[in-house]
Amino acid sequence: MRQNDLDELRGQVDELNTKILDLINERTSVVQEIGKVKEKQGVNRYDPIREREMLNALVQSNEGPIPNGIVEQIFKGIFMSALEIQEDEQRNALLV
Amino acid sequence: MRQNDLDELRGQVDELNTKILDLINERTSVVQEIGKVKEKQGVNRYDPIREREMLNALVQSNEGPIPNGIVEQIFKGIFMSALEIQEDEQRNALLV
Repeated sequence: MRQNDLDELRGQVDELNTKILDLINERTSVVQEIGKVKEKQGVNRYDPIREREMLNALVQSNEGPIPNGIVEQIFKGIFMSALEIQEDEQRNALLV
Repeated sequence: MRQNDLDELRGQVDELNTKILDLINERTSVVQEIGKVKEKQGVNRYDPIREREMLNALVQSNEGPIPNGIVEQIFKGIFMSALEIQEDEQRNALLV
């Protein structure tokens, strides 16, 4: 009985993992679009003020159980990845 | 014109941020449930084999643009957070 509960809960986690991944990928695609617009404007991609605003908005809408400090930690990782990917792409473009 | 594009794209990012946060919170709640079942079974919460399986499944379903290495990095952070939160709760329960 309990093993079934565990399997059922694990199935839920697997489904959530995939949904989270899809959304983070979707987010990264939009950030790439933003990067292209900024490039045309000659503006720097990294915008610490915008990053702070996003973190504040996230903390404000956070209903838990994840504490705000860890929310910030996870999202800083997600923000950083999106920037890293763009830098890699830029570097590769320069190498072509 | 371009500023409007940027605002529109940023709006999309804000929406995605909130959706991602909600799903990570939902995931954490399910992991807490799993923790309770495991506690009753006297089984250790941290399960590196299950973690590896989840990472493999994520990498397999990853359609990009995030590279697999960064997908693993982000999700290891998410997995770790869920464990940390449970440990904190356990510690607090012992202190009551």
